[in-house]
Amino acid sequence: MSRPFISFLTDFGPDSAAAICRGVMLSIAPKANIVDISHSVKKYAIRDGAYLLSIAVIWFPVGVHVAVVDPGVGTARRPIGLKTQRGDVLIGPDNGLLLPVAEALGGIDEARILENREWMLEKTSSTFHGRDIFSPIAAHLAIGGKFEAVGSKIDPASLVALDIPGATARDGGLDSSVVYVDSFGNLRLAGVPADLASAVGDLQSGRRFVVEFGPTGDRGPQSENVPWARTFGEIELGKPLLYEDSFGHLAYADNQGNVAARLGIASGTAVRIRPA
Amino acid sequence: MSRPFISFLTDFGPDSAAAICRGVMLSIAPKANIVDISHSVKKYAIRDGAYLLSIAVIWFPVGVHVAVVDPGVGTARRPIGLKTQRGDVLIGPDNGLLLPVAEALGGIDEARILENREWMLEKTSSTFHGRDIFSPIAAHLAIGGKFEAVGSKIDPASLVALDIPGATARDGGLDSSVVYVDSFGNLRLAGVPADLASAVGDLQSGRRFVVEFGPTGDRGPQSENVPWARTFGEIELGKPLLYEDSFGHLAYADNQGNVAARLGIASGTAVRIRPA
Amino acid sequence: MSRPFISFLTDFGPDSAAAICRGVMLSIAPKANIVDISHSVKKYAIRDGAYLLSIAVIWFPVGVHVAVVDPGVGTARRPIGLKTQRGDVLIGPDNGLLLPVAEALGGIDEARILENREWMLEKTSSTFHGRDIFSPIAAHLAIGGKFEAVGSKIDPASLVALDIPGATARDGGLDSSVVYVDSFGNLRLAGVPADLASAVGDLQSGRRFVVEFGPTGDRGPQSENVPWARTFGEIELGKPLLYEDSFGHLAYADNQGNVAARLGIASGTAVRIRPA
Repeated sequence: MSRPFISFLTDFGPDSAAAICRGVMLSIAPKANIVDISHSVKKYAIRDGAYLLSIAVIWFPVGVHVAVVDPGVGTARRPIGLKTQRGDVLIGPDNGLLLPVAEALGGIDEARILENREWMLEKTSSTFHGRDIFSPIAAHLAIGGKFEAVGSKIDPASLVALDIPGATARDGGLDSSVVYVDSFGNLRLAGVPADLASAVGDLQSGRRFVVEFGPTGDRGPQSENVPWARTFGEIELGKPLLYEDSFGHLAYADNQGNVAARLGIASGTAVRIRPA
Repeated sequence: MSRPFISFLTDFGPDSAAAICRGVMLSIAPKANIVDISHSVKKYAIRDGAYLLSIAVIWFPVGVHVAVVDPGVGTARRPIGLKTQRGDVLIGPDNGLLLPVAEALGGIDEARILENREWMLEKTSSTFHGRDIFSPIAAHLAIGGKFEAVGSKIDPASLVALDIPGATARDGGLDSSVVYVDSFGNLRLAGVPADLASAVGDLQSGRRFVVEFGPTGDRGPQSENVPWARTFGEIELGKPLLYEDSFGHLAYADNQGNVAARLGIASGTAVRIRPA
Repeated sequence: MSRPFISFLTDFGPDSAAAICRGVMLSIAPKANIVDISHSVKKYAIRDGAYLLSIAVIWFPVGVHVAVVDPGVGTARRPIGLKTQRGDVLIGPDNGLLLPVAEALGGIDEARILENREWMLEKTSSTFHGRDIFSPIAAHLAIGGKFEAVGSKIDPASLVALDIPGATARDGGLDSSVVYVDSFGNLRLAGVPADLASAVGDLQSGRRFVVEFGPTGDRGPQSENVPWARTFGEIELGKPLLYEDSFGHLAYADNQGNVAARLGIASGTAVRIRPA
């Protein structure tokens, strides 16, 4: 029999907070296989956490997935559990963090508020629900607790959603935006190659595009003339390219460089792509 | 039967040193469940390590806990093992690192110096006792080795202690200090709410205090007028608050901000709290 | 029976990429004990990755070791597997990353190109071979797959090697270089104490040397007059020393300081050591 699987993502950083949650989970579910996704999500950056979760959990075994990027801890924001079509349970705050990954796992089968005091730590603080509520409830589910027991059913339509911009065809080009800046400095963009192709036609290797960024802050749009490429190997070292990333999304990078640093671009920046 | 539990904290950072220790432990105790607390403790910062250990290990199963923040490696400082009242064994250098967590685990039952050459690596370097002494001895204990076998008994009163400032009532206020700056930039302070209440009276939400920091370096004290709050949610975004942290200690933070960065405050800074 | 052992090193950083690979491995080999060496290797720094691997894997149980520092992903560079004399299998790109650790494990017994499509993910991207090729093949080997099944045998002499400078005696001194700067800022140098001793004679504690660094960038060589020391404890706080590191190599450090930051020295810098 395989060990119950728990994955874990937070913005807790390098302190001992993530380890404390792991200790709480192991005290309840000593055989659980707890896999850290990342604890280096930018502080309070719910969108970044939602993105990282959504691209990661689909590669994991079915299990319980705990995510805590929770600037509203201790306020009226609800602690929730979401049962997905694939059979996973997602545990975390009702602030939009869990919705993209729920969609990636086939959608929400059932949503519940976390109310079961028996499955929480005896004393719950108002600032560390990761330790006091989310971790112990996840561990109780991992050892076979029924999802129904976490608390009352709620309407999935009542869940807080992030305002995540998509990709929109306009005037012969595509309006997109930077969804995430990865640690290589590559820009993960809204939309997939099919979105761009339906706006501009076939995407042959080497076809050139003008990509406009911004406005960000007080600067006007920056623009670059770059090729579509199938692999980084087609591009000179340090030069930019537009490509399909390994998750099937549009992306923009400097070959072995850090384009986010070079252009000073952060997630949320508007991006417009049009044929050169 | 559950797997033997080992926790592990160091200032080794992102190099492979922590993984090497894990390899040494697994070679001796292949079934051990080794949980990293943190390997990002500030280099040589014994106090930071002692604090992170002391708040973390109480949440873990009883086991062996290895900690290495060891600027004195290769000098006359003793390698030690401490048996705690809870039943854990703490392994590390005799430089104060292990004493706060020993206290949190009920106090020291027995202290021994690590001398058993059979349980160390065959060749011990003078700069990497984490690998050569602490990890293999911890692993031997984890697979059932007797604590008595690590080496001679020593007097707990002979152990090196950190000079950790506490909280002291004075002139209608409380003298405290910054014990740790967490990765959110929140200031973990010496003392608990009861210390403050006994100095100033009841701590109602919204009651205002003047908090003075410093002197640090060549600057005089900085002071801020802030409310006592039960939750971050009571406070405007970016504004400071005085509160009880999730470990029951006094703490100071900006709501969703980084107060340590804003005020330029490091651990060790003196803090004085008085009614406004 | 012990769990199959997989170690894992990348330059993927704090995003979820390393966790995704772990998920892929666990989906195929649910009982595998996957140990992270580091995912903080400097981006694209093949030499740094090769060094960290070579000092770490010898401390691990025999197993499968996956390493991905892969600036050439998606180009003609070959994905390879190396069977070592010790019995390990190394999996990664053919860019020199795996050769120093192969040597540390007794040398290459057999080299093969990774071609087995059945052991890869169904769809392989051109930018994330860690997930699509290296991880699943490593996991198939971990659950008992035969090394012969990964793909065709290749000539070890055809493998891409790094140009790693060694230590050379010249004019009564030793020419070395900085192989790696660790997270303490200590400089790990090419060569071992015997190399230095054969160039300059006996290395007694306290014997003084002139160590020249550079030229780096537009600066001329920097030089310092330092003692050879057996332990950091022999040296005043903050002062430099030349010593044998815990892996038996030459090294240069400030006692409890960061000499790389103080002198502005990076890996690759030339180092010349001569008697003072």
